[in-house]
Amino acid sequence: MQTNTKIDQHLTQNLAQYLTEVSELCAQPSVSARGGEDMRKCASLVAQLLTKHGLTVQVIETAGNPVVVGTIKGQSSRTLMCYNHYDVQPPEPLELWVTPPFQPTIRDGALYARGARDDKGELVARLAALDAVRAAHGGELPCNITFVVEGEEEIGSPTMVDFVQQHKELLRCDGAIWEEGGIEPSGAPYCSLGCRGILAVELSVKTMNTDAHSGRAHFLPSAAWRMVRVLESLKDAHEHILIDGFYEHAKPPSALDLHYLSLLPNNEALDQQIYGLKQYVMGRTSQQVKEAVFQPTCNIEGIDTGYRGSGFKTVIPAKAVVKIDFRLVPDQDPDDVFAKLRAHLDRNGFDDVALTNLGAMSPAKTAADDPLVQLTMRTGEDVYGIPAVIYPMVGGSSPIYAFRNPLGGIPVISPGIGYWDNRAHAPNEHFRIHDFLAATRHLARVMDGFAGIVK
Amino acid sequence: MQTNTKIDQHLTQNLAQYLTEVSELCAQPSVSARGGEDMRKCASLVAQLLTKHGLTVQVIETAGNPVVVGTIKGQSSRTLMCYNHYDVQPPEPLELWVTPPFQPTIRDGALYARGARDDKGELVARLAALDAVRAAHGGELPCNITFVVEGEEEIGSPTMVDFVQQHKELLRCDGAIWEEGGIEPSGAPYCSLGCRGILAVELSVKTMNTDAHSGRAHFLPSAAWRMVRVLESLKDAHEHILIDGFYEHAKPPSALDLHYLSLLPNNEALDQQIYGLKQYVMGRTSQQVKEAVFQPTCNIEGIDTGYRGSGFKTVIPAKAVVKIDFRLVPDQDPDDVFAKLRAHLDRNGFDDVALTNLGAMSPAKTAADDPLVQLTMRTGEDVYGIPAVIYPMVGGSSPIYAFRNPLGGIPVISPGIGYWDNRAHAPNEHFRIHDFLAATRHLARVMDGFAGIVK
Repeated sequence: MQTNTKIDQHLTQNLAQYLTEVSELCAQPSVSARGGEDMRKCASLVAQLLTKHGLTVQVIETAGNPVVVGTIKGQSSRTLMCYNHYDVQPPEPLELWVTPPFQPTIRDGALYARGARDDKGELVARLAALDAVRAAHGGELPCNITFVVEGEEEIGSPTMVDFVQQHKELLRCDGAIWEEGGIEPSGAPYCSLGCRGILAVELSVKTMNTDAHSGRAHFLPSAAWRMVRVLESLKDAHEHILIDGFYEHAKPPSALDLHYLSLLPNNEALDQQIYGLKQYVMGRTSQQVKEAVFQPTCNIEGIDTGYRGSGFKTVIPAKAVVKIDFRLVPDQDPDDVFAKLRAHLDRNGFDDVALTNLGAMSPAKTAADDPLVQLTMRTGEDVYGIPAVIYPMVGGSSPIYAFRNPLGGIPVISPGIGYWDNRAHAPNEHFRIHDFLAATRHLARVMDGFAGIVK
Repeated sequence: MQTNTKIDQHLTQNLAQYLTEVSELCAQPSVSARGGEDMRKCASLVAQLLTKHGLTVQVIETAGNPVVVGTIKGQSSRTLMCYNHYDVQPPEPLELWVTPPFQPTIRDGALYARGARDDKGELVARLAALDAVRAAHGGELPCNITFVVEGEEEIGSPTMVDFVQQHKELLRCDGAIWEEGGIEPSGAPYCSLGCRGILAVELSVKTMNTDAHSGRAHFLPSAAWRMVRVLESLKDAHEHILIDGFYEHAKPPSALDLHYLSLLPNNEALDQQIYGLKQYVMGRTSQQVKEAVFQPTCNIEGIDTGYRGSGFKTVIPAKAVVKIDFRLVPDQDPDDVFAKLRAHLDRNGFDDVALTNLGAMSPAKTAADDPLVQLTMRTGEDVYGIPAVIYPMVGGSSPIYAFRNPLGGIPVISPGIGYWDNRAHAPNEHFRIHDFLAATRHLARVMDGFAGIVK
């Protein structure tokens, strides 16, 4: 029996067990934005799971949540790293979930839970792939494999840069598999070569000691209105960010990037269906949307000011807080953007606005002609029957940058369990079970072939 | 013993009882913005209290909360009405209250509770005055007195117009005492001759079916940003409201109004102390602030969009809701302003923004040379030893308009228990007990003299 047949047989026969493992992980809340004892419980569950799958496990303390590292030896000197995270986004608004976010539920061929797709399902898919490759080779692996599972991805991986610097030897590898991959509506697998950076900040302004009666609005200053003025100073109605020097280090896409972008499918009809959109931001066309991933954004995550109960309350809010995230493109630097934002506020008379850095990640990108990219495309076509779709960059962020630079600019690819309506970060997050199975087959082939590709 | 001496003796001897009555009323929550059974419980308490003070009481049903009406006959045909309300503002934010809002507490010579000043304390002060006048005249009253105590003032008195129309005979009177009066830092009583109107609205916009990952902010439309654009279209940075025709019916103050405004004390140092202000809105001077009460305002009561928990959450909000109140001056009409706001939204491409009328009141104003105003000033000087300060208009709103027109443009004055730091509508609402006592003495003199003034 051929290796791939053995791999596929193993995965099909053990699918139910892997779904159980996903459910057990997702049943443990691990909202890093809130922290607390949940995070350690989840790290401990991950350590047990990696141990059960034959890895040698260390739970390594950091200034924040612990990182779980598992290693397993193979027959070559080459090492493939799998990056995952065990933390999840907050589940609110709870009332929009069909089943509770931390009670994993299988229905209509999909597994629903906060973290199902992002990123606990991905973690288990890789462990399944590892099992399958080992089973196909009589218990041996063709290459070394290292799992790194962190607990602060959703809050910007604040300790990951230091962590990688401090554990360079443990983490040394020749390539890595990241999150964010999956299947296209066409049935083709997709793979991203990089992601944008992020800078998340909180702006806070206080105009009075206390909320006041709105009958005094002709003389008492409103924090809500002041924050509106701050926001309108940050971005114009044409999506142009108005911070001085903001675009200084933003690189446009290369010719090869543009080529891959032009091959990407148009998702307009799908986006209309999923989001109920009338049109994209600024009435952008599908092609403009594809290219706009190489543009940074300024997104309001939420505004907190004044009264929001039922009816109305005639108060002038004394305080307003806004959370904003900027998505950054190569070679923008979050620290540089933070400094420019502070300077912008001061220059525009908003020196009373407090600015807090909530989390930051740099952008990162792998070259499209790397052998690991080629292996991923080839094996993807084998599993899915259609050539892989390459995204030169995705809109989200990940701590790839924290690994790539210290580890010598390793190539990073991202086959995975996703599809276009996973609701990651939103209510009713889920993955489809057939996507999960296909991803494990693809991941196993990449692990199986990694030793043999020419660096 | 002179009448006034008897009045003062009665009030001093029975002060403790009246404070107990205030506490009993304030212990009963009655947040009209929330409604529910609390409202009927409070109406029933008010009915019991009025009955106890010798009035003939009716609890009259309306489309909203019931109105309590109490009447008592006097020796002349003239009737003085006392207007009050038993509903209160929401108490949030609860964490800023030193003692819980619905556990009335006396400390440092003041009574703290939601509703203490606005308006349950005022109601009891008037009942105390009535008692005192009757006691001074051997159980008789010189004029008829009618108490009207409604339960929807804090949500814009939506049923009061109809109520007065339907009960014109019951409510017929020759003058009325309203809320909002009190003492100045100088020790002088103050009295307002009118108030601004209000239009409270909710603006709501939905750009997607669901919140989305902020890595998609380059193509998915944000409700938060859309609402910022709506808000910046409503008012410029110089406090000028940009709705077409908004100022069309706004009358500037008369020469007599300006004269009274010029006599008003400057509160700049006080406002700095209370609110921790650096400067007034737009850097206005004290004189500009006085005159600005004749300008309408556009106040943001609160903004509700996206995530406001700890840390951050990388979502694009699909929905944004803003509550706004406009304070209106004579002769602006809330219905007219509502229609103009809708037209403004449509004309500016915001036809996807839903607009709801949360509550409205018209402005109202009494002439400064009315005999009831003169009586109030004269008796005020007798109690406080300093001539009364006249506010031609106050910044807040009240349903005066709903009574004045159907009842033949009666004069309305407002001696009361307030002082400059009562925290009405805010945490730690209270009144000072010596202010309460002085107000009862003043109110009793007005009731005592009302039969004798020339109409």
